[in-house]
Amino acid sequence: MKTEINQDIHAALAAIKDRKITHVFLVACGGSLSIMHPGKYFLDRHSSALTSDVYNGDEFVTRDPRKLGPSSLVVLCSQTGTTKETARAAAHARAKGAFTIAMTLDPASPLGTAAERVVAYQASYTTGVPIDAADSNYGVLYMILAGLIRQVEGVDVVDSLLKSLSALQPAIDKAHLVYADRFDAFAAQFSQAPVIYTLASGANYGAAYSFAICVFMEMLWINSQAIHADEFFHGPFEVVDKDAKFVCMIGLDETRRLEERARDFLYRFGSKENVLVLDARELDLDGIDEAFQGYLVPLIFFDTLWKFAYKLADQRGTVILEDRRYMKKISDY
Amino acid sequence: MKTEINQDIHAALAAIKDRKITHVFLVACGGSLSIMHPGKYFLDRHSSALTSDVYNGDEFVTRDPRKLGPSSLVVLCSQTGTTKETARAAAHARAKGAFTIAMTLDPASPLGTAAERVVAYQASYTTGVPIDAADSNYGVLYMILAGLIRQVEGVDVVDSLLKSLSALQPAIDKAHLVYADRFDAFAAQFSQAPVIYTLASGANYGAAYSFAICVFMEMLWINSQAIHADEFFHGPFEVVDKDAKFVCMIGLDETRRLEERARDFLYRFGSKENVLVLDARELDLDGIDEAFQGYLVPLIFFDTLWKFAYKLADQRGTVILEDRRYMKKISDY
Repeated sequence: MKTEINQDIHAALAAIKDRKITHVFLVACGGSLSIMHPGKYFLDRHSSALTSDVYNGDEFVTRDPRKLGPSSLVVLCSQTGTTKETARAAAHARAKGAFTIAMTLDPASPLGTAAERVVAYQASYTTGVPIDAADSNYGVLYMILAGLIRQVEGVDVVDSLLKSLSALQPAIDKAHLVYADRFDAFAAQFSQAPVIYTLASGANYGAAYSFAICVFMEMLWINSQAIHADEFFHGPFEVVDKDAKFVCMIGLDETRRLEERARDFLYRFGSKENVLVLDARELDLDGIDEAFQGYLVPLIFFDTLWKFAYKLADQRGTVILEDRRYMKKISDY
Repeated sequence: MKTEINQDIHAALAAIKDRKITHVFLVACGGSLSIMHPGKYFLDRHSSALTSDVYNGDEFVTRDPRKLGPSSLVVLCSQTGTTKETARAAAHARAKGAFTIAMTLDPASPLGTAAERVVAYQASYTTGVPIDAADSNYGVLYMILAGLIRQVEGVDVVDSLLKSLSALQPAIDKAHLVYADRFDAFAAQFSQAPVIYTLASGANYGAAYSFAICVFMEMLWINSQAIHADEFFHGPFEVVDKDAKFVCMIGLDETRRLEERARDFLYRFGSKENVLVLDARELDLDGIDEAFQGYLVPLIFFDTLWKFAYKLADQRGTVILEDRRYMKKISDY
């Protein structure tokens, strides 16, 4: 277990110790953008001094918020570091005098070299073995933000975060066992579905977004949308019938009752066999501080849902991570 | 043409003249939430002193941002004023010491009475005749924000806004003529579609969101998602084939090139007959200041798209504004 945040994060934050940072821009695209949502949730809940925005890389560059300047910290993320929009966003932020920290698997990548500081993280799909959760994209992002809050306003949750991150992998391993049979059943049930929605709120919303756009749409060519659990009741719920298919995340943050309400509606007006519910109350979160459970549950949901994606791909006869029409096949768009 | 912002907005802003407002929360649900996105875009582009967040009503209450307090202005909106989550959000914000302004058709409604100040707006579907655009929800929101920026930091775009709003209705009327034949053709083409996506960025994103969740999903029971024009390339675009159906908005704000890029991709890998493009360059925007065209184009798109919704409903044999399964039919969810 780590007893302090990673050295590169420590050094990046030390470099802005004397700068009055008031605003954090969290900038990325697609799956990397999805982790920024719980990052903002964490900031909203813990900081009274820092405001923040979450933007897609190209939206950030073209929108060019007037606020962006020397008192801004811009945290950017791209798995490979080759996402053009995000690398451009780093250059744009630097030109405006903001301080930039890039998160990427590859510090030598275009994004890694475009930012003033680079923080490497790991992904188990490249290492081939389970990684320390503190070294994942979520883990690194939470460390940057917890370290920043400690530095800027003296609110210190770093110990609790590190302790909780060290207990995450065992919780993920146990979660896989909890969901295995359920995923088999739902993969068969969802095998012909033309549309599957995901549904979440609060710290879980990013995981629901990522699963909708990167897994269902990108890898399985299934139509989808990540529906916010309360927005659901202001339009989207009218598509619900007995055949409507949903993946519902019920987490442990302050917005839990929104997710419960949506699940209850779906159970009542949809069919239980078409509503795949992941409820964090079913999980063994031993060692994860109660204050951090809400923030780490989406990592557990997302990690376990990969198994569901593979099972669903089997049922549909597609090959996940390989079958693509455009991404990395066509380069001139 | 108005030469000054509405009296009730003027009075609401005067009440916070001596308060140091630093942050604006824009809070609502569903269709009313959708207008908050261009509101934030306007703030981002014009203000260096004010930060802002856009939240669904119940997300706002449960997330309970630590920043929320006496230096916050919370602008809330609900058409009927009966949206429970939004009325609760007003009460929550007041309890935290924030200043609250409610926008609603009905000042005597629960939301209207929950906030410290209420600003009434109008909608043509209740008045039965076209309204002055300055009295619409978008118009009133822009006036609040432009008035606030003038008061807080001396940036004055109020004249330009009012002049532009006065030229909006003629532009809308002419836009209907531009789109009439196109909407006929696409209503027939889309009549059997199980899924139709909307696509936009920047100031248009709210209109795309509202059309996806309130029109396609709520009123027509068509599966949908409002896809951000650059996020499109980071997952969603893999669902595109020759049959995929999209409504693309191409506006006049700083993010236009994102929307153009997505349209170009759809024209190339989808089919032109399945991609309904609304390009603001086709419109006659006479009298609307160039600086405000980007902010007012989404009102034109949304207003004209209602016609498309009715035509599509005719083709599908559904009755728009009446056919509902749950909303206002079942009350105990």
